[in-house]
Amino acid sequence: MTDLRCPVPLGPGDTIQLAHGGGGRLMRALLEHIILPAFDDPLLAERHDSAVFDMPGGRIAFTTDGYVVRPLFFPGGDIGKLAVYGTVNDLAMGGARPRYLSAGFILEEGLAIDELRRIVTSMAEAAATAGVAIVTGDTKVVDRGKGDGLFVHTAGVGVVPPGVDVRPARVRPGDVVLLSGDVGRHGIAVLSVREGLAFESTIASDCAPLVDPVGALVDAGIDLHCLRDLTRGGLASALNEIALDAKVDIQIEESAVPVIEAVVGACELFGLDPLYVANEGRFVAFVRSEQADRALDTMRAHPVASGAVRIGQVEAGCRGVVTLRGRFGGTRWLDLLSGEQLPRIC
Amino acid sequence: MTDLRCPVPLGPGDTIQLAHGGGGRLMRALLEHIILPAFDDPLLAERHDSAVFDMPGGRIAFTTDGYVVRPLFFPGGDIGKLAVYGTVNDLAMGGARPRYLSAGFILEEGLAIDELRRIVTSMAEAAATAGVAIVTGDTKVVDRGKGDGLFVHTAGVGVVPPGVDVRPARVRPGDVVLLSGDVGRHGIAVLSVREGLAFESTIASDCAPLVDPVGALVDAGIDLHCLRDLTRGGLASALNEIALDAKVDIQIEESAVPVIEAVVGACELFGLDPLYVANEGRFVAFVRSEQADRALDTMRAHPVASGAVRIGQVEAGCRGVVTLRGRFGGTRWLDLLSGEQLPRIC
Repeated sequence: MTDLRCPVPLGPGDTIQLAHGGGGRLMRALLEHIILPAFDDPLLAERHDSAVFDMPGGRIAFTTDGYVVRPLFFPGGDIGKLAVYGTVNDLAMGGARPRYLSAGFILEEGLAIDELRRIVTSMAEAAATAGVAIVTGDTKVVDRGKGDGLFVHTAGVGVVPPGVDVRPARVRPGDVVLLSGDVGRHGIAVLSVREGLAFESTIASDCAPLVDPVGALVDAGIDLHCLRDLTRGGLASALNEIALDAKVDIQIEESAVPVIEAVVGACELFGLDPLYVANEGRFVAFVRSEQADRALDTMRAHPVASGAVRIGQVEAGCRGVVTLRGRFGGTRWLDLLSGEQLPRIC
Repeated sequence: MTDLRCPVPLGPGDTIQLAHGGGGRLMRALLEHIILPAFDDPLLAERHDSAVFDMPGGRIAFTTDGYVVRPLFFPGGDIGKLAVYGTVNDLAMGGARPRYLSAGFILEEGLAIDELRRIVTSMAEAAATAGVAIVTGDTKVVDRGKGDGLFVHTAGVGVVPPGVDVRPARVRPGDVVLLSGDVGRHGIAVLSVREGLAFESTIASDCAPLVDPVGALVDAGIDLHCLRDLTRGGLASALNEIALDAKVDIQIEESAVPVIEAVVGACELFGLDPLYVANEGRFVAFVRSEQADRALDTMRAHPVASGAVRIGQVEAGCRGVVTLRGRFGGTRWLDLLSGEQLPRIC
């Protein structure tokens, strides 16, 4: 890892400068002192333009997500952890076993190098937890006032086991909708620190990898029609997306959707609907009715999905609508919002 | 592609709003009206969290790059074309045949939707030219003043043919250094429009896919020790990186490195060294001496590398230094710069 010619210092000061993105000596120092030691991967250490690894033949899942959450650190996580688990979860939602991740940073001139160090350390820990390797990356620096501290994109590749075919088009009337746990924590965690609010008890983000419960569902032979994690726009938006893309109607029981009391309270304070608040460690699974109970038991065996419940089913209609049956019997459309209640939540 | 319930308009005005990144109705409209029609790929149209495709077993190359070039459009290209060819070229530099790309956008509130449309159209054209499919993506929006119009990250996967093993560690004393064409065009093209300068003849970026000459070298049975495209920091930085990572010394003949007259003139005007100016369609190849002539002939058969030349060789030293033998016989170190002469060049 040490330079052959001379030790390369990180440069004057302890903040990111434009030159750290310039492909020269300072960029090499940034890689050697901060990024490579954190990720400590032999493929990354090869420092070639692309990482090369062996994969079994067959179906590969490939995904990407950008992360612009503000602030960079929040109760229960930070942008780095989010960037690893978010992309790992997108692979899992394709039924895949995540294997390799890339990380591309856009740093704003003036970012504290210590913040960058904390973020890449958090990414490395999250990757180890999720069982993936960060094998290739890129760093760019933009002028002060043209970014917002740090943005990161991760992309991921994973292996789809034989027989697994998870996608909206497979959702059918009669399918049962399972939810892996209570909703709304991530959005409220970010919002509370953004607004400088303290609640009686700190609400931590639910940010977590969903690899284990999904892998267990596959191993248990559950025919997973569709999976979706409940990020931007929350449960309601995810269900709407699936209803529209699968051309089906979905009915949900409001009383079946778990929301912890602290999130209910915060939502009342902010005027938010918890069904639209972002999560980073929750998902829905669409399965055939006769497999629903076994799927629930399988999910509940994993801490991240221990609160899994059945919340509704796919109806015979094909309008692409989601309806919510209220606690007192009434039914209302659970429509797509125009945007997100909380911008820059992930 | 049309919404089941009602046609979704793009929203008021013709600029990006925060809500376009919110995971709701406006984001769906942005995807349906701008992004999906441009890329028009069946995997993308599945609209699942990850794209799933078949790959042969064996070695896979995986890479990512972020693009923050300013301005978004320049002679010979734009950020979209750059984002496709740049990542395709990074795969090619691993000896791989590029197959699939992801695209992640960070849009600044206020970006003209027409600019976004032009950029994604350019990406789609570049992907078709390079023979890759854009199969998965993501869009985020940040507040006005927290971005700079549009940033994009692409990641790519490709297949490494059997027997190909391209990486810095394989570079050996005695290897010949081949350069695929004249250097310095991309940096000068971007700089001239950024500074509002017009030269007698417009200098266009060399932005191009390097897939064909690399594929031909592989097919011709050339044992490629290392390949590197000459982006940030130009030829000099690429050679320094390889010398440092391979723990070898490299000697280059200054007179052998082609630079067109317009680039020489612009570099004199700006006080730049063309050997450090970024390219987006040039690469160096390290091959065994006895294969050098055949490799050159193979490269020259492709328009993008028709100007290929031999520029130097790897020496027996192990200091990781690059020396330049001048036109009049003197020799000087060609060192890594601290940063890049031109920030935000890609």
